[in-house]
Amino acid sequence: MRSRPTMSDIARIVGVHVSTVSRALDPKTCHLISPDVVAKIGEVAQKLGFRPNAAGASLRTNRSRTIGIVVPDITDPVFPPMIRGVEDVLSERGYAVVLANTDGDEGRESEIVSSMLARSVDGLALASSRFEDKLIPRIGDVPVVTVFRETKKPVAPCVIFDERAGIRHALTHLVSLGHRRIANIAGPRTISTGYTRWEAFEATRRELRLPLDKRLMVFADGFNEQEGARCAEALLARTSDFTAILCANDRLAVGVIDVLRRYGLRCPEDVSVTGFNDMPYADRFVPALTTVRVQQYKAGREAARLLIEAIEGGAARRTRPLRIVLPVELVVRASTGVAAVKGKTRRGIAAAR
Amino acid sequence: MRSRPTMSDIARIVGVHVSTVSRALDPKTCHLISPDVVAKIGEVAQKLGFRPNAAGASLRTNRSRTIGIVVPDITDPVFPPMIRGVEDVLSERGYAVVLANTDGDEGRESEIVSSMLARSVDGLALASSRFEDKLIPRIGDVPVVTVFRETKKPVAPCVIFDERAGIRHALTHLVSLGHRRIANIAGPRTISTGYTRWEAFEATRRELRLPLDKRLMVFADGFNEQEGARCAEALLARTSDFTAILCANDRLAVGVIDVLRRYGLRCPEDVSVTGFNDMPYADRFVPALTTVRVQQYKAGREAARLLIEAIEGGAARRTRPLRIVLPVELVVRASTGVAAVKGKTRRGIAAAR
Repeated sequence: MRSRPTMSDIARIVGVHVSTVSRALDPKTCHLISPDVVAKIGEVAQKLGFRPNAAGASLRTNRSRTIGIVVPDITDPVFPPMIRGVEDVLSERGYAVVLANTDGDEGRESEIVSSMLARSVDGLALASSRFEDKLIPRIGDVPVVTVFRETKKPVAPCVIFDERAGIRHALTHLVSLGHRRIANIAGPRTISTGYTRWEAFEATRRELRLPLDKRLMVFADGFNEQEGARCAEALLARTSDFTAILCANDRLAVGVIDVLRRYGLRCPEDVSVTGFNDMPYADRFVPALTTVRVQQYKAGREAARLLIEAIEGGAARRTRPLRIVLPVELVVRASTGVAAVKGKTRRGIAAAR
Repeated sequence: MRSRPTMSDIARIVGVHVSTVSRALDPKTCHLISPDVVAKIGEVAQKLGFRPNAAGASLRTNRSRTIGIVVPDITDPVFPPMIRGVEDVLSERGYAVVLANTDGDEGRESEIVSSMLARSVDGLALASSRFEDKLIPRIGDVPVVTVFRETKKPVAPCVIFDERAGIRHALTHLVSLGHRRIANIAGPRTISTGYTRWEAFEATRRELRLPLDKRLMVFADGFNEQEGARCAEALLARTSDFTAILCANDRLAVGVIDVLRRYGLRCPEDVSVTGFNDMPYADRFVPALTTVRVQQYKAGREAARLLIEAIEGGAARRTRPLRIVLPVELVVRASTGVAAVKGKTRRGIAAAR
């Protein structure tokens, strides 16, 4: 079957932005466009046999051409590139993006989603969902995509990263530098990234026959510098018998490195540290951070693409929601080095106290 | 006159979020709230004599409770805290935030604003406006606030920073360290921050009786690392007779420091560098950046407050739009030091070539 003409086709032929086409074809907004452009667009639309919202209009009548994006906190540097990816794809199709922050609060998230549904959003991109999510099944027939995160029971399509490969790369890298006693500062297991990265650490640790020592395992309550610092303090209070710390994300690693410095421990000479995400400017920190690069912007674009497919009816019916896993890449920088001589960490701490 | 009861008053009494009140009182959305909460809210609203949208409803009927935020690029780290500030204030009042990126393109900005107006936004917060702005006067009666930027002719209320004080602090700091030959990598003069910071540099330079040397003045086409690097190259191609570089923002400074390093020049031992904004993680760069701290989050909150006042009718009629100037603060870190011995820069460059 030949594909239906789209607004993008018309935009390309007339030589205008697709949002101009969208407005020109809408009686409510065509007065915003100059009359000759409206005429030209109408002509091309007719020639191509364009029918507005042809595929999706039958499913829902109350279309707003608006998508909601829900993030924990836009000031966390991993989210803006993703949001930008979503907006770049959607704005080309004449959709607007409504943004809200949950601060990781479940009640707030539920409030925001209700409010967005009340505004008749056509779809939702959630970067705020929990691993055992109770909210998504209550959303009903409005298309939802989770981005950066997935749910334990697959209730919505998701765009995520290959977390397992990322952790395996980072841990293997540390072992290749001679590290054996490697601590893990893991993220909260209530969200999929925290859970999966922790699980991948444990699986890889067993594979590589690294010793099991529960003192080397600390869970953060959030993915930020303050929690990284708190966890590093907790770790050092228990033991100093380690030469490397694998952190579940970059912000945790930044907090960890701060505490190491305070204890007189150098990174990487005394303790190597790895992060996850390759957040903006991670290459400029002291020391430049060894981390796992993920494609935040691409994840946003993919999520937007999935939403548009679902809204405009191009998506095939699936028995199981689509799960897009984007590849990751280890980026080796200055925060990792060959394993310190045994006992170095302990001496360092003793000296600092 | 006693002030009218607001949704916030009801929310406080009932003990729910204000957005719950907003939805409970709207026949279109009250089904989203549990019936007993709706009943309770209705009761309190009646007791207080609450009238929905009392102040603003007479002015415009087509209210969407949506505000548009337009930024050049959400991935530039100065914008997310501002957006967060806007959203924090607006969400409390039951407004949603629609976000779009212009990449600094005037045509795109105009497209976005038209599209937002077509969606009946109640107000616009623009961080994308030009110093000689042609768009705002065409917007009509929808309230507009510019944030981070102002227009040469005051056509809208603005929330900006005390750019002049910031540049004066930075330049005075350099002079106090013994610097006399200080280059300026200025921002684009087509936007108010670029224009005002450049003008403030020149004014302070004259005040402090620093030598005028046109070779020490380079204009960037944008506020980013690439432009910082390009301008540093251009500067070094002209002269090496300087000991410090004042940059119009942090991202320019980061690009400048990269180029200095490539030329074998150490910062601050050979050349001191200052930025502007105190962007997130500027304290963790190599070297930690001396810069001017601005209150991005507070600017967002103030802009939202101005918009709500304008929309809900609380704003007094003013002959001249309100101009809120937030104070700034110099943050001295490792990228500035005492002036290098004369000729050091030149020798450094010669050695690197």
